Amino acid sequence: MADVTVISPSEAVAEVTEYWSPKILGRVNDHDIKVAKFNGDFVWHSHPVDEMFFILSGNLVINLRDKDLFLKPGQFVVIPKEVEHRPQAAEDVTALIIEPKGTVNTGDAQDLGDKKATQGEWL
Amino acid sequence: MADVTVISPSEAVAEVTEYWSPKILGRVNDHDIKVAKFNGDFVWHSHPVDEMFFILSGNLVINLRDKDLFLKPGQFVVIPKEVEHRPQAAEDVTALIIEPKGTVNTGDAQDLGDKKATQGEWL
Repeated sequence: MADVTVISPSEAVAEVTEYWSPKILGRVNDHDIKVAKFNGDFVWHSHPVDEMFFILSGNLVINLRDKDLFLKPGQFVVIPKEVEHRPQAAEDVTALIIEPKGTVNTGDAQDLGDKKATQGEWL
Repeated sequence: MADVTVISPSEAVAEVTEYWSPKILGRVNDHDIKVAKFNGDFVWHSHPVDEMFFILSGNLVINLRDKDLFLKPGQFVVIPKEVEHRPQAAEDVTALIIEPKGTVNTGDAQDLGDKKATQGEWL
């Protein structure tokens, strides 16, 4: 039988030292359950798949081209595939991200600035 | 562009009147994001797919055949496909469930008792 373990993402995220670098906590079918820490502005990008953000702590703004989304702890949003978005965190934000395994955080962005492209490693 | 909306599951669940009857809040690719209210013992069952439980409020026990899982608010577990499980809630529990669309809550259970099989409707 596969190992079945209860996970506390808000405790696990304490081990995440790098911003904008999601780490994998679990997998549900072909989707990874990642935890990430945000601060500052990320890069504009999109993915060929949907991506779910669930906020654990802090307030996150996600810019879309036609509006801004304001997320508080306990809230979630699904960014549909192909929709350009940019996360902005004016303070430390921790979040769960659920998306197909292999999804790269920076998506189709060409100019990454100081951000690093990663599909995440297991924490 | 698809409509992109911020969802507050802990507010949405207030509209759920029936126990053990998950309602759909969103969809990420081929997975539904459901919210449910539990109280009492559910039926033993398994699914042909993995199922993620994320606890919003209350304490949930999930019995497996070889151990019990104890979940508190903010914690999650993935029940792997084919693993028999039985949720038990000694108090009101609210949870997010993420699983492939079409997944039926009672899985392969034959004797449902007073529980109803449902794949969930949109809330």
